[in-house]
Amino acid sequence: MLNQCPHSTVCLPATGLPRVVVIGAGFAGINLIKKLRNQPVQIVLLDKNNFHQFQPLLYQVAIAGLEPDSIVTPIRKLFQSYENLIYRMAEVERIEPQTQRVFTSIGWVGYDYLVIATGSSTNYYGLQQVEQNSVGLKDIRDALDIRSWVLQNLEAAAITCDQQEKDALTNFVIVGGGPAGVELAGALAEFKRYLLHKDYPEITADWMKIYLVEAVDRLLPMMSGGASAHALEVLKKLKVDVLLNTAVKQYDGSVVTLGNAEKLSAKMLVWTAGVQGEAPGGLPEGAIVKGNRLKVDGFNRVVGHGNIFAIGDVAAMISEDTPKGHPMLAQVAIQQGRLLAENLLHHIRHGAFEKTFRYHDKGSMATIGKRNAVAEIGKSTWEGWFAWLLWSTVHLFSITGFRNRLMVGINWMMRYLSYEKANRLIIRKFKPPGTLMKDRHASEFDKTFISNH
Amino acid sequence: MLNQCPHSTVCLPATGLPRVVVIGAGFAGINLIKKLRNQPVQIVLLDKNNFHQFQPLLYQVAIAGLEPDSIVTPIRKLFQSYENLIYRMAEVERIEPQTQRVFTSIGWVGYDYLVIATGSSTNYYGLQQVEQNSVGLKDIRDALDIRSWVLQNLEAAAITCDQQEKDALTNFVIVGGGPAGVELAGALAEFKRYLLHKDYPEITADWMKIYLVEAVDRLLPMMSGGASAHALEVLKKLKVDVLLNTAVKQYDGSVVTLGNAEKLSAKMLVWTAGVQGEAPGGLPEGAIVKGNRLKVDGFNRVVGHGNIFAIGDVAAMISEDTPKGHPMLAQVAIQQGRLLAENLLHHIRHGAFEKTFRYHDKGSMATIGKRNAVAEIGKSTWEGWFAWLLWSTVHLFSITGFRNRLMVGINWMMRYLSYEKANRLIIRKFKPPGTLMKDRHASEFDKTFISNH
Repeated sequence: MLNQCPHSTVCLPATGLPRVVVIGAGFAGINLIKKLRNQPVQIVLLDKNNFHQFQPLLYQVAIAGLEPDSIVTPIRKLFQSYENLIYRMAEVERIEPQTQRVFTSIGWVGYDYLVIATGSSTNYYGLQQVEQNSVGLKDIRDALDIRSWVLQNLEAAAITCDQQEKDALTNFVIVGGGPAGVELAGALAEFKRYLLHKDYPEITADWMKIYLVEAVDRLLPMMSGGASAHALEVLKKLKVDVLLNTAVKQYDGSVVTLGNAEKLSAKMLVWTAGVQGEAPGGLPEGAIVKGNRLKVDGFNRVVGHGNIFAIGDVAAMISEDTPKGHPMLAQVAIQQGRLLAENLLHHIRHGAFEKTFRYHDKGSMATIGKRNAVAEIGKSTWEGWFAWLLWSTVHLFSITGFRNRLMVGINWMMRYLSYEKANRLIIRKFKPPGTLMKDRHASEFDKTFISNH
Repeated sequence: MLNQCPHSTVCLPATGLPRVVVIGAGFAGINLIKKLRNQPVQIVLLDKNNFHQFQPLLYQVAIAGLEPDSIVTPIRKLFQSYENLIYRMAEVERIEPQTQRVFTSIGWVGYDYLVIATGSSTNYYGLQQVEQNSVGLKDIRDALDIRSWVLQNLEAAAITCDQQEKDALTNFVIVGGGPAGVELAGALAEFKRYLLHKDYPEITADWMKIYLVEAVDRLLPMMSGGASAHALEVLKKLKVDVLLNTAVKQYDGSVVTLGNAEKLSAKMLVWTAGVQGEAPGGLPEGAIVKGNRLKVDGFNRVVGHGNIFAIGDVAAMISEDTPKGHPMLAQVAIQQGRLLAENLLHHIRHGAFEKTFRYHDKGSMATIGKRNAVAEIGKSTWEGWFAWLLWSTVHLFSITGFRNRLMVGINWMMRYLSYEKANRLIIRKFKPPGTLMKDRHASEFDKTFISNH
């Protein structure tokens, strides 16, 4: 494949085939691409990362000892056998619909069909101070930062002579009672229960407090009341302080201010309380709806544009049944990606789109701690160990790549047989805003010190 | 164990037992500690990282797809069952022998016996420009940086329209023909041979050049002439450009200037050409010898100090047999650590040191590419596949932790059966000094862009 390099493109060969530019290698993007494999289209995939990440297991990288490499797959490996795909590592800056170009960090690329599959990011609802002083859980680097942050705080707590500081360093606040928050809280609670005293004999387990803060009146609000109740019960047994009907107003790195004006002293806060779409720039305002998502029709076409599409979290297919668009779930992304691929091929061949999207709800699941979960599929609900088994099986087979599945499977087996979680590592130190410790010895070696000088 | 926290210590309990402060959790430190387990001493371990790393396999994290987590072991996990050990994550700033205190980033700690096991770091021999523009291979973060850097360069090469830039981006220079350099060059050459065209169809394999630069007249100078010749032959077959009798004078991030004034165009340089000891501050100049190592006697006592010891790479035991001290090898570190533990216990019981150190040379090995190696034990030499098997076995069983051994073993098995290496990931982008690409679109999103704006 010869590279033709006019100055102002990202060096793509011209093939004479219709070019489908896909922005984003998440669930939606990769499932679309899989169905276009070796079809008569040229696929150009743009993603700022060179890997696809399996977001449902991020919390296990953050707390439960899963190797980060095992839940990410290099894009070039994933699509190695795709003759009709070109990948470019690039950040998209804006779309120019009138010229059918996408402008990126490495140049512009023209498209015949544009598929925006940029996913979502953490939504802090305008709480800037919270945003500056906390992390989310949407990305592998968030997970690694949380992993370092928890351990750094515990190392600092092990040595501090100040009881108030020790309390703050051993208090961990998770905001958001959806699956991400529940799973993270459960994993952290398991760590506290089974490993803390082994690893940190200097810290009494009772000192460590985990708060899970949720603004509405129940956890897992998208699931049934029974699931919510079960999650609450399990977390309480694991000694998580669940604060329902409670919002977070401020967080300065040391003190969390709640909606009821109460304050919590905590040196770590993870925000899983909101997501927003990652709509790229350049599209008219009328296309963007609440939550920074792109309004699409039943064919996932961005309204007002015949050849620009959006799928997955970033898309809001508004209808009577879904007045706010579909929920931001993996299954929605996967199904939309697959259908759009079919529709695009049909359009290329016959000049029209064929099938409108109908979401097949395959259920919801969330783990709570090590061997507990809730799962709802259709009208059936499971709780406890069987739900966890179901959750594990579904997720294991959803991970891309045999090697990754093997690594995760082995990791889970070892954890199942023992509570030992090996990967309590601080490889890259996390530097949260705010001060972790009072100054003891100020030092310029900020790469290696745990205090944030 | 109650924490007694006078203001100016790192919050250690006073036990009445002699306190052995160990600085560094490398091979020397951990092997010393293993022999002091549950003995009548209080061990205080200080290390700036919270993990021990298995350095011999760093090159496989850098190039060959090994998960970084599988060659590091959290210190707190490693020593979980040690009743008499306290670990503190801290960077040592200086020693104060007259008051028997070690000053660290988190406060000072007093000692009865001090063991300096700080290891070694990359020695750039005063070549500041080289140091600023390259990485070494002494630490897990070096390995991850190399991993990202190689892939980022290839991504940039895949899109650049400038042939000279493409050449520079696909030239990789490794300086130092010892085991680290040979192993890295071999792994990179295997990648080029078997994976480059699959992952990067835009890059012709011939464009990618790997240079291994060595100042003396042969590779693996510490091994026999036969081993050197075999390594050279294998690397040449793998199309590595081996430049012997060649020094590197300068490197500005784009151009390498050699000793003979020739220049190489390359956007990556890894320096494995020198190591130096990491002697901490505060010790008299007379104790420090060439290479920033501490001069020790046959009991590993730092000269002029009765209760300060140095073991491993940082120690130089100068004698008739070893006029420059022992080589900086894992086996030396391990053996010195073990013996010193025995000697310390003897001193505690009987007031004297018993055995002087005698190094038992267990041989040298180095891999070259995927299934080739050289190994020399005593007077026996092996080359090729059997040497590689020997190397693999020895290293596999030297890794700490069953889980890590399992993960590495599985990884190797999968690689052996297939050339596929899964972990071609850029998780944290590496920002080398110097410019990777000419400006196309300057952007402030420097965390996500490959070009170094």
